[in-house]
Amino acid sequence: MHIELKRHSGTPLWKQIARTLADRIRSDLLKKGTRLPSVRDLAKTLAVSQVTVSKAYAELERMELIHCAQGKGCFVGPEPESGAGTPETAASWQLSIVDYLPRAHTWRHFQGTSSSCRYQLHIAEVDARLLPNREICRNIQQLVAEDPAIIGNYGPFQGDAELRRALSAYFRERGIDAGEEDVLITSGSQQAIDLVARTFTGPGDTVYMEGPTYSGAIDVFAARGARIVTVPVDDEGMRLDILSRLCDVNPPKLIYTIPTFHNPTGAVMSASRRARLLELARSYNALILEDDAFSDTWFRTEPPRAIKSLDRSGHVILAKGFSKILSPGCRVSAVVASGTIMNRLIAAKTIADLGSPMLNQRAVLPVLQSGLFQRHLKRLRAALKSRRDIALDLLKRHAPRGVTWTVPEGGFNLWLTLPDWAKATDLYALAQREGIAILPGITCYANEPEHHRFRLSYSFMDEKSLGEAVILLCDIMRGYLARPLPKATFDRSTL
Amino acid sequence: MHIELKRHSGTPLWKQIARTLADRIRSDLLKKGTRLPSVRDLAKTLAVSQVTVSKAYAELERMELIHCAQGKGCFVGPEPESGAGTPETAASWQLSIVDYLPRAHTWRHFQGTSSSCRYQLHIAEVDARLLPNREICRNIQQLVAEDPAIIGNYGPFQGDAELRRALSAYFRERGIDAGEEDVLITSGSQQAIDLVARTFTGPGDTVYMEGPTYSGAIDVFAARGARIVTVPVDDEGMRLDILSRLCDVNPPKLIYTIPTFHNPTGAVMSASRRARLLELARSYNALILEDDAFSDTWFRTEPPRAIKSLDRSGHVILAKGFSKILSPGCRVSAVVASGTIMNRLIAAKTIADLGSPMLNQRAVLPVLQSGLFQRHLKRLRAALKSRRDIALDLLKRHAPRGVTWTVPEGGFNLWLTLPDWAKATDLYALAQREGIAILPGITCYANEPEHHRFRLSYSFMDEKSLGEAVILLCDIMRGYLARPLPKATFDRSTL
Repeated sequence: MHIELKRHSGTPLWKQIARTLADRIRSDLLKKGTRLPSVRDLAKTLAVSQVTVSKAYAELERMELIHCAQGKGCFVGPEPESGAGTPETAASWQLSIVDYLPRAHTWRHFQGTSSSCRYQLHIAEVDARLLPNREICRNIQQLVAEDPAIIGNYGPFQGDAELRRALSAYFRERGIDAGEEDVLITSGSQQAIDLVARTFTGPGDTVYMEGPTYSGAIDVFAARGARIVTVPVDDEGMRLDILSRLCDVNPPKLIYTIPTFHNPTGAVMSASRRARLLELARSYNALILEDDAFSDTWFRTEPPRAIKSLDRSGHVILAKGFSKILSPGCRVSAVVASGTIMNRLIAAKTIADLGSPMLNQRAVLPVLQSGLFQRHLKRLRAALKSRRDIALDLLKRHAPRGVTWTVPEGGFNLWLTLPDWAKATDLYALAQREGIAILPGITCYANEPEHHRFRLSYSFMDEKSLGEAVILLCDIMRGYLARPLPKATFDRSTL
Repeated sequence: MHIELKRHSGTPLWKQIARTLADRIRSDLLKKGTRLPSVRDLAKTLAVSQVTVSKAYAELERMELIHCAQGKGCFVGPEPESGAGTPETAASWQLSIVDYLPRAHTWRHFQGTSSSCRYQLHIAEVDARLLPNREICRNIQQLVAEDPAIIGNYGPFQGDAELRRALSAYFRERGIDAGEEDVLITSGSQQAIDLVARTFTGPGDTVYMEGPTYSGAIDVFAARGARIVTVPVDDEGMRLDILSRLCDVNPPKLIYTIPTFHNPTGAVMSASRRARLLELARSYNALILEDDAFSDTWFRTEPPRAIKSLDRSGHVILAKGFSKILSPGCRVSAVVASGTIMNRLIAAKTIADLGSPMLNQRAVLPVLQSGLFQRHLKRLRAALKSRRDIALDLLKRHAPRGVTWTVPEGGFNLWLTLPDWAKATDLYALAQREGIAILPGITCYANEPEHHRFRLSYSFMDEKSLGEAVILLCDIMRGYLARPLPKATFDRSTL
């Protein structure tokens, strides 16, 4: 496997190796039973000392992610019960093929065992019953009736011009001066983040991200081999005092932020911090990637305007998600950028997939052009607020002492904190046994994870199931905090 | 800009720099009037001598892609007419942002000035009137009527299970032993190639490609920073004698091939070469990426079975395009691979865009499940053959002496060769003035281009327009070959 070591990063090499392997194991990219390379081989491949690799393997053993047997080597997963024999070694030649996928937590968590749980508190998506599916399907009916050739042709690489015009109007209403030429249609926000990362970041670049942040974005930047530095978040969003100190040491190439209803904490970056963050990016000639999937889902008052609305010099790339709030199945989101930054992103989109399907773009167009979008958002906000209230109310009544949570004013998520000593991965495993899926916080950190936090999304399940799930989860938390798990109760390599 | 130099590749560094800059200029990623970095700055950035950079700039001047003015620096494009003043320097700070996009020829050629031409001989797509649009649109009508929530949810990252089952049956009929678990749905073949490249290739890896080949694939592998080595093609496909000698020096990580109705030459790799190519890949533990968009479009006899059908050990990744022959607007293609290779590709697809839209996948499913697909292919083959015949017949009657072309037995393209001294880019510029777009051959070479070849696609235009276009093009060729252009008639930076 390819491990991108940063020799002057301040993080010891053994730790970098252990962290990369841990990410691969937790992503299920290295499966249980896989034999790891020998200490000697890996040391040679990575051009490090054998002591360094030995330390990394020892750390992984301590984390219960691998086990090593004298004379046999090290294997992913815990030691098998005595008498169970040596674990199967998935000794295909294919394992020798080096790849550039250091982690894939999203893949792991959203189509692994969690998806079979009855209560899906890990999914930060809108319940499909709250979306304008009928209206969009009516548009589709009309589109294919009027012009069947819509599915016989490619569309423009940059996206449908009419849709880009409609989005330009949407952005201008929100103070963002974007013409249709400044808008690129992408297949969801995930692709928007990926296009920016593949175009502008590589092994030599420093990328700043909030810690915690959206795990899918970490997957993307890690795959680029960029040096990721994390910045903590408080009630007003990313801690700029810390960011600016870190930038003194490692100048930023790109700063990735979710300023509005931050995922997972729900924090909203204050207007003054937005202005200061832009100033900081300008001073370094760095890019800001502003990820906004949630700003339309405020509960009481509109959040501050996007950082992009303050941008006169083209430093901000806005990834605006419409997929989640309008139609996950159409996969339509947008990037706003200008000048050569936009040109290069269109070129990257072309290389990635030759452009998004026209039918999907045209399907959402009439919704965005009409008052329907605003009416939909109004209903959606009320429904989300009601679900948030249910979750908060039940937590207040049933959560055990020592557990705390955020109170978001928009978005889809609560961020819960267990006592310091607790492990959200243990809670995750216990909850899964009872049919409840949560998202362990460790997937949301690019570097040092905080083990005692997790995300609970209230947006996906109907009110009744949500209520049942929260009460049940409180019971499970109470049980866990009263009787922590002994070491190796679970196979931690599968967490 | 980021230039990935290969210090031990045998190609001089100045040539690598010149080639990369030429690709960027020809891709329109460096626009006319842009000031290039000073010799001193670029030398410092790339850690090479100033002499090396000077030689690269001199070569670009010789190619008429840039011009340098004493004391002012070097600029993209030809020297302006005297009195026209210094060209505008697109001196935005954005130009200082390094990117990882060495070329984007597809973007440049398929949505640049060519798209406004009346006669589009450069587009290797099927005329939309030959596609089963009505049937697919009927499926869409039914899908959205039955279940509007189809556009309210995400689908599985790997693709719809029913579609994967149908494709598994399609592949098994063709001797490819692929279960539904071995199939990944992608947004067109372009994304299939991109997923393979991003997962398995990087700066340290050697990728072999045919020269010429599909320009969109070159864009992809170049963006990964891989060392690309090209192998010539003859009537039986890739020259394996040359490939195996080259592999002795640079062992392959991946071999990209279009064995069936090769784009652009139309060559079909013989069955014996297919077997030998697989043997060679196995001996190096290398991957083969078999790109098949055309095998269903044979005119007289079925081509040999896919290399993937011979693969028992999981060395071949098949990118099977359904987009071109069925529904470009649905953007549904597939990857066939097995074991950890498939697992890693699903993870990469997740990172890239969280999966393709379900509606688009379900829209083509009934076509693939029924006899309709075979009936459609039969009609499509006849229509394509008829267009090929028209093009061949008119070339035979009207093409000037000294011009030759391939006679493909399937696929969409003719590959034409002008006399050695001629430049297809000059012909391209002359033809464009007359409203005809062709694809200059230089876009199809990863390394040393052959300047006197070009591609003519007969698949996209109706028979009447195709006939008019070929006759007109023959006239233009005759004129050009009789009176070659003087130096600098055209702004070659836009070619």
